[in-house]
Parts: sequence; structure tokens; C-alpha cells
Amino acid sequence: MSQLRKDPICGRWVIIAGERSKRPDDFRQPGGERAAETPGFCPFCPGNETKTPPEVFALRPGSSPADSPGWQVRVVPNKFPALSRGAPAPRTGEGLFVRMDGVGVHEVVIETPDHGREMSDLSLDQLKDVLRIYRERIRSIEREKQYRYIQVFKNKGREAGASLSHPHTQIVATPIVPKRVKEEIYGAERLLAKHGECAFCLVLRHETQRGERVILRNEHFCVLAPYASRFPFEMRVNPVRHSARYTDIAEDELGSLAETMKTVLTRLKNSLSDPPYNFLIHQAPNARMTLNGGRVVSVDRSYHWHIEIIPVLTKVAGFELGTGFYINPVSPEIAAQTLSFEAPPAS
Amino acid sequence: MSQLRKDPICGRWVIIAGERSKRPDDFRQPGGERAAETPGFCPFCPGNETKTPPEVFALRPGSSPADSPGWQVRVVPNKFPALSRGAPAPRTGEGLFVRMDGVGVHEVVIETPDHGREMSDLSLDQLKDVLRIYRERIRSIEREKQYRYIQVFKNKGREAGASLSHPHTQIVATPIVPKRVKEEIYGAERLLAKHGECAFCLVLRHETQRGERVILRNEHFCVLAPYASRFPFEMRVNPVRHSARYTDIAEDELGSLAETMKTVLTRLKNSLSDPPYNFLIHQAPNARMTLNGGRVVSVDRSYHWHIEIIPVLTKVAGFELGTGFYINPVSPEIAAQTLSFEAPPAS
Repeated sequence: MSQLRKDPICGRWVIIAGERSKRPDDFRQPGGERAAETPGFCPFCPGNETKTPPEVFALRPGSSPADSPGWQVRVVPNKFPALSRGAPAPRTGEGLFVRMDGVGVHEVVIETPDHGREMSDLSLDQLKDVLRIYRERIRSIEREKQYRYIQVFKNKGREAGASLSHPHTQIVATPIVPKRVKEEIYGAERLLAKHGECAFCLVLRHETQRGERVILRNEHFCVLAPYASRFPFEMRVNPVRHSARYTDIAEDELGSLAETMKTVLTRLKNSLSDPPYNFLIHQAPNARMTLNGGRVVSVDRSYHWHIEIIPVLTKVAGFELGTGFYINPVSPEIAAQTLSFEAPPAS
Repeated sequence: MSQLRKDPICGRWVIIAGERSKRPDDFRQPGGERAAETPGFCPFCPGNETKTPPEVFALRPGSSPADSPGWQVRVVPNKFPALSRGAPAPRTGEGLFVRMDGVGVHEVVIETPDHGREMSDLSLDQLKDVLRIYRERIRSIEREKQYRYIQVFKNKGREAGASLSHPHTQIVATPIVPKRVKEEIYGAERLLAKHGECAFCLVLRHETQRGERVILRNEHFCVLAPYASRFPFEMRVNPVRHSARYTDIAEDELGSLAETMKTVLTRLKNSLSDPPYNFLIHQAPNARMTLNGGRVVSVDRSYHWHIEIIPVLTKVAGFELGTGFYINPVSPEIAAQTLSFEAPPAS
């Protein structure tokens, strides 16, 4: 099992080793980390179901047996989990050195049996199924209570951290609310107190009026190039209806989200020569959070779930690591201009 | 000039565009960002001095004229600065959308006239000169008063964000104290209040006693694999003497730092097949900082400058972007074991 450790000075948590543990030799190849992929073999392809841990869910229109071909979407535990199921363990450590067991969940959603069909190539129905399965897996993991946050994310392409190219999304449940999520929640809570309204809703209204950073808007979703984008061509997919939790997404919104994601991922692909990208869903945590003074944070009023899509086009370097400031060489206004239109397919 | 923008929800500042501005076409090449390097030509090599902005400092043992060959170390303004000198401008913006002019300094320290001689290959005297020049440039920029923090950092190798391979370090002065530095400062201040002592000094004492994460220790410096390392084989170079500011480093400490850096960078190179890496100096800001309630932070007592060395061996991916948690597949204890010994040179 991995270990969570807290930096004694700045309080940042990290996840150390565990099943993903590597030896120094693994880094001696040119190009860094040894490829997880065996050429010509994919554990996510139909017929190789026994090469993954047993499935926890699968969409099987023909009622084929578990862990056999015939599925359309398949969810399996990660073979090399960052966090593993287990009894919640208390924080331990000596003095400044705090740690806890790496208790959590790490699952993989295999989005399609077709190795070469990436997310933007899926049919709207298939993509809607994938997005519904995110919701169902989150609901199911939330029932286990001991996890405080569930992070859904996708790494597409080697440069974006994918070790296998077969289209998949990952779901990780963590025993503490992550720093990045906390920063958004506390910020949103302060702004709710100040403006009497969800700050994400405020931003959406302002941006829709101005228009210059709007990439796409339909009945249910509004895609923005965020005002303070960290990365070139970063996008944020926001539900128009105020809602703190992805698990509250309704059936018609799922269909609209599938359309929205397919459209913007296709534009990204065509406008920028099919770049690697990450996306991640930010949503309210499972845990009750309190402010200094003990008042409970009203996440259901102040928070607003969204999806961040981050193309990997630049390198994070010493300045970003040292300061936490990102340098973005493309203004979000230019990014929105570029991504607002259908580009011809990448050649 | 670039622009600093603040994220309306989480308050994170980013630097947008400016001289580094890129068009969408710049990202359409396979492999992302277009290489800044023209094959066969290097603006940092002797003879090409006119291809950089005029030098602000150079070590010229033979008293050759400025912007001509004959230098050993040369400092020039960055041709594509992230931030530029200018009158300090107030924060502006409408409602939730705050921004300010990208006022600051961005310099490049060209460490050697020899294109192929990287930092770990420099003689101890040459490396000591480079480290002294960092100190002198920081002192000089600090005199301009309007900048609140000075970040010294190095990107070595393309994967670590270097756009030119000629050995160089960058110095950026920012108009606000960066988030990462603030987190360390506030953390250290809280711990000073609790323990009555610099927390960095406490950690150094504890780690020296335990020994399992110590990579190297000499009279003036102690190199650790940090307890909560974010990255495989991350190292932290700490001065043994308590000091908040790199500018306070004494002449004998400079010599010792040169030896320490040369040793650990050589070990990194030999142990891990010459990986790309970043390093960065964290030091106290120029600005007075206050806590909630208005009490001034006693950075000179609570903060302790240090150098973080971060090999680039894994990718930052969706999970890290979403949560701010890093997953580190190598425990710092294994990293310290590996880096505590001289490895044979990489073949």
C-alpha cells in the first residue's frame, strides 16, 4: 500500500510509491520512465480481460459473462493503484513528519473496446454512456463513506502522462480533500459570502455578456477559455444550471455534455494537430468541510462542478515549480477565437 | 508587456502572453511548441553577443569590451521576457476579474562560454563564480525596491523546459510574492510560533539524526531527499547555518555550495543517465509580509533559504492537475540510497 506524507513546512500532501513503486533502473532508459506498454499487446482490448483485475462494472448489451468480450464500456480496478481500498487509518508520524496509509480507490474506465477510437471519435450515445458511468461509479464509491474526494481524470497521449494508449479515464477516491479542490471551495465560499451568489454562476453570466472568452454555449453547458488560464488553449466546461455535484447531472444534461465534449475535443484535435491533453472533473467533496471558527462550508450553494480540459503544449519548468505561477504564452481571448470555430480535420 | 491575471475563484495568479506570445500555428508542429533553437546557431555562444540584448553584467578576466567575446560568465536580459521593467502599476479590472501589468525583471545568466559544458562539468572556481553572480544580481535587483520576490531557476534539457541548450540560469523578479513561496513562509511562521525555532533547522536536525534521507552533508550544506518528495530523486540543498536570504551567503559558503552542487549534479547525471532537471532557489521575499491581524511575518527568523533540484523523470498528469497531490513512484529513502554514493559515469 502507498503512503500519504505531508510536507512538514508547507503542508502539501504527496502519495509515495506503493504498487507503482519503481527502482532506479526504471529511470535509466533514455526518455525517462519505462513504457508500461508492451508493443502489440493491450490489456484493455477485448480478449485480454484476464490481464486486468476483475471488472467492477461493465456495459454488456448482449449479457455476456463478466471479464469476457462483449462489453461496450468496462470499469476495472487499476492494476498499479496510487491508493488502495482498506480500513481508514489515522495520521501517524513523529513530530513534524506526518503520514497516513494510502487508503482509497483507483479505477479505470475503459471507454470503448476499440483501441484506436479516441474519446472524440465515440458516437454520442457511446460517449453519453461513458459520462453516465462516471456518475454511477462516483455514486457507488461515495457510498463507502470513508473517502473524502473523488477525482475523475483522463490522460490522453504519452506527453499527458498516459502509459497505455487505449482510451480510458481514471477515477481516484482520496482519504483527504485535495489542496486544489480546497482552494476553489474556500475561494467560492468567500465569494458567496460577499456576493450572495455562487461565484461560478457570476463568472458565467459576466463571460456570456462579454463573449470574448466563450468557446461554445448551448442550453446546458458553457465552455470558456478561463480568464486566468494557466495553459495555452485551456478550456473549462461549465454546467449552466447551478449544481455542486457531478452526481446530480440529469439524463438530458448527460446527452448535452456528450455533445459538448465531442465538439470541443474535436475542435482541439483539428485546431492544434491532435495534441495530448488532460481533463479532470472538479466537484464538491463527500466530506463536510469547516472554515476557521467551525462554520460548515455550504458547498452545495457555493460550489459549481466543472470540467477542466488542458492541452499539453508547453513544459512546466523551474519558474512554475518555484513560484506556482504559470506563464501562458497564449491569451485566453486568442484561444477562444481559435476554438470557437470548426477547423478542418488535422491532416 | 505581459499581464498578470488572478483567477476569480481560487486566487491563483498567472502570467499571460506578452513578448512570449505565440500564435496557434506555433503549436501545430508535432511535439508541440516550436523549437526556439536554430540548428547550428546559439545566441549564447561567444561571437554572437549582439544576438542577445546588451549585457547587464559580465565576468571578463581580460577586460574585453562589453558585448564582445572574452567573458567567462555573462548576464543578459531575456530576449522574450515573462515580465519587463516598468513603473509599478496598480491592480485593475472589473469585478471578479483582477489583473496588473507584467512588471518585473527577467535575466539570463550564461554560465560558461563553452556550449557543451553543463553545470556539473564546470570547474569549482567557475561554478563558484556563477553562484556569486546569482547573489550579486539578486542584490542589484533588490535595490530597485518595487519587486517583491526574486526567483532564480535553471531548466536543463528540453523536457525540463529549456529552449536553448547552452548552459544558463534564469532570474525573474515578480511584483507579488508567489503562492508557493507564501505557502512555505506562512507554514514556517506557524511552526516558529509553535516550536520557538526555525522549522527548517528542526527538520535538518531530525533528518541528520535519522540519516535515512540524507544524501550528503558537509560543514556548510546538507542535501536531503525531502520527507514528502513530490518527484522521484528530488533533492533539497539546505545551508546548515540558519539564513533566510541567499544574498547573505558568505565567500567560504559559496565555495562549499559549488562543491555540493557539483557533487550532487554529477551523481544525478551518473545514477540516472543524465536526466533533464530543474533547480530553483527559494529565499525570503523582499517585501514585508503580514499575517491575518496585521502582525509582520518574521521571515528572517522563520525562513531558511534552500535549493530544490527536481529531475524530470515522470509526467505531471490529470490527477496532479486536478488535486495538487503528486504521486511519487520512488520513496525518498530509496532516492537517498541511490544518490548517496558515487555512481560510475553514465555510458
